[in-house]
Amino acid sequence: MKFRRSGRLIDMTNYFIQNPQRLIPLTYFADKYQSAKSSISEDMGIIKQTFEQRGIGTLITLPGAAGGVKFIPKTSKEEATSFIAELGDIVQNPERLLPGGYLYLTDILGNPTLVNHIGRLFASVFADRDIDVVMTVATKGIPLAYAVAQYLNVPVVIVRRDSKVTEGSTVSINYVSGSSKRIQTMLLAKRSLAQGSKVLIIDDFMKAGGTINGMISLLEEFDAKVAGIGVLLESEDTQERLVDEYVSLVKLTAVDVKEKHISVEAGNYSSFI
Amino acid sequence: MKFRRSGRLIDMTNYFIQNPQRLIPLTYFADKYQSAKSSISEDMGIIKQTFEQRGIGTLITLPGAAGGVKFIPKTSKEEATSFIAELGDIVQNPERLLPGGYLYLTDILGNPTLVNHIGRLFASVFADRDIDVVMTVATKGIPLAYAVAQYLNVPVVIVRRDSKVTEGSTVSINYVSGSSKRIQTMLLAKRSLAQGSKVLIIDDFMKAGGTINGMISLLEEFDAKVAGIGVLLESEDTQERLVDEYVSLVKLTAVDVKEKHISVEAGNYSSFI
Repeated sequence: MKFRRSGRLIDMTNYFIQNPQRLIPLTYFADKYQSAKSSISEDMGIIKQTFEQRGIGTLITLPGAAGGVKFIPKTSKEEATSFIAELGDIVQNPERLLPGGYLYLTDILGNPTLVNHIGRLFASVFADRDIDVVMTVATKGIPLAYAVAQYLNVPVVIVRRDSKVTEGSTVSINYVSGSSKRIQTMLLAKRSLAQGSKVLIIDDFMKAGGTINGMISLLEEFDAKVAGIGVLLESEDTQERLVDEYVSLVKLTAVDVKEKHISVEAGNYSSFI
Repeated sequence: MKFRRSGRLIDMTNYFIQNPQRLIPLTYFADKYQSAKSSISEDMGIIKQTFEQRGIGTLITLPGAAGGVKFIPKTSKEEATSFIAELGDIVQNPERLLPGGYLYLTDILGNPTLVNHIGRLFASVFADRDIDVVMTVATKGIPLAYAVAQYLNVPVVIVRRDSKVTEGSTVSINYVSGSSKRIQTMLLAKRSLAQGSKVLIIDDFMKAGGTINGMISLLEEFDAKVAGIGVLLESEDTQERLVDEYVSLVKLTAVDVKEKHISVEAGNYSSFI
């Protein structure tokens, strides 16, 4: 089926959006549309320009026989700032307050539009790092980890608190949770992570950082390295932070259970883009 | 910023792909591109035609003041059949066999490209049903549920096996697992599901159907209704199936631990599209 330019632009845009961070040979499109490579190159020039103008991302062209074109999703600083402000407003809603000063975030993490947008922000800030896999701990971080992984085109591995027969053999560690100082266990299926992997850790919430620190210890068992850490919400309410370098979207500055008031500010995200 | 047609087609395609099943007023695009509504209508005609030709989906236009345009993702029968065959090959790999005849599926569920494609297939088959929310049970079904929910533009609710303080008050039920006949518990945060919701249940694996049956019982506690059931992998190895109507992608017909052999065939998906 032969395509006019407009049809090619639409179909190629769809393909790039569905396949971020993947190297696509020019011949793939030339064969698909039965078009000359020179026409495909022109198409890509138009798409690249529009993607950059609209803050969608960019196309990178790698020359040579093993080359091709790759779509890198990006978020502009303006879009990130306005989305983070919107997230802050959502988090501040006093109806989130649970007994004990905990926050109900399940609705945010259950909204695929928000989750996807959060994923795009993290993928944007970590786009230039060398990442083999995204890791999170069950259960609440899972949707965020997938959203990031999809934009980075890498797999997800999930650390669990309990062992399941369908995971096969596992490696487990004990760690001390940063805020409650309790000893906890986490484990990871042996075959889910290759030795030496470069790992992006994503989680929904970080207080003292004990859970994330636990994941870092678990990575050492796999000779794997931390390539980055991203958390949706960090809490300021802590004496000693166990984790140094991380990217956060929103920072919880105060929770007043009696007055039913939650205070937030933007996390450190903007200093990374 | 004024846009030429090619730029509009690219940006609109991106917007539709990122916002499936959402009604977008024509004025949104007319304002965004400072273009006449007649030009936007022509653009949408070109996009609709390309989406349909390439099996991406379709655009539906609703007339009137409250009207607009909506992108409905669809998968062609050919694409679904070939993807399901590919999935079957992946599942059949004898290295998946775990002690006890269990299958390791974590790598499939950890691959965002596969998960996304599975999500698009389910969203395609359930596109015409009235669905308020996608439900699954922690942990392994979560990525699939999000992929489906994103294409349907509805939230996800996650049933858990254990209670967490950050979920607030919960409703719990006991149920009998279909194959092991053990009594198990599942629970759902009270505020995560509105009374009377129409729920699409998604899970990775169904044997006798005890877990899915448990979720159906839990729905009754919320006066909610089952709008559909989708499972990635069903197992034939069962006397009495507890669940009637469901859509499956792949069917496990035999697992021979001694000979290290896994047999699969296509699930019932193709009879629904």
